[in-house]
Amino acid sequence: MKIRQLKVEDCQRILPIMNDWWGGREMTHLLPRFLFDNFYDTSFVIEKDDNIIGFLIGFLSQSNKEEAYIHLVGVNPKNRREGVGSTLYNQFFTTVKKSKVKRVRCITSPVNKNSIDYHTNIGFSIVEGDKLVDEIPVHTNYDGKGNERVLFVKSI
Amino acid sequence: MKIRQLKVEDCQRILPIMNDWWGGREMTHLLPRFLFDNFYDTSFVIEKDDNIIGFLIGFLSQSNKEEAYIHLVGVNPKNRREGVGSTLYNQFFTTVKKSKVKRVRCITSPVNKNSIDYHTNIGFSIVEGDKLVDEIPVHTNYDGKGNERVLFVKSI
Repeated sequence: MKIRQLKVEDCQRILPIMNDWWGGREMTHLLPRFLFDNFYDTSFVIEKDDNIIGFLIGFLSQSNKEEAYIHLVGVNPKNRREGVGSTLYNQFFTTVKKSKVKRVRCITSPVNKNSIDYHTNIGFSIVEGDKLVDEIPVHTNYDGKGNERVLFVKSI
Repeated sequence: MKIRQLKVEDCQRILPIMNDWWGGREMTHLLPRFLFDNFYDTSFVIEKDDNIIGFLIGFLSQSNKEEAYIHLVGVNPKNRREGVGSTLYNQFFTTVKKSKVKRVRCITSPVNKNSIDYHTNIGFSIVEGDKLVDEIPVHTNYDGKGNERVLFVKSI
């Protein structure tokens, strides 16, 4: 298991496997090419036997210099519980800390209980919302499309 | 007509009008909330009578310090040919120049002839591709999904 910085050409290897990793959901629209082209220095890939088994796409916030944002983390379902996710998150935290980042943010959907558990377990706090869904604070209409989101923040 | 920096809360005003401006196409997935949250200092809005009539979402490339990227520009069809687009592009060029950016990039689809004409008219060059579509150089499979793209670059 080897972690390395994302390369632009990983785009061609990650996009074809994504939907499969997410149980058939159409996910590729979440990784537009501009993320690979412009934010590879804070994004990472883990390989095992030359196959990508995990990736993290994140960046420094350009508008809020003390913050960084994790957009998407994927782990091959066959390699869950091997520490792939935590290795990726820790690499991101270590990297963005060098750019004086103090807080890392990310979001998920209220239905994604695994993601909520995972993020709170690794030290993210849930940001106060405007209502509760299953006792979880959520932000309604977060992206202007009527979608609710759970917001996480972690001091690093 | 007044140009100003994008605000995070413009998200709630821009997303509901987008599909209409693009003739009914589903476009909102192209503007995830993280763009509003993290790149508002290089993104702009033009208002007329308190209505948003145009916007530009762009950012500095984090990985390539000499480059900036324009992700999406929208103009209300009722306000075409009023200089809304060129005002937005010029504001972006002026802003990113202050961060020592030397080149601005953007992409479009080969079918979008208006966009290709517009970008070449305002001084963008088309980047050499791996094949020609209607005599236009395109990059096949640019985003790993089998989609062809026309790539533009402009020195500023």
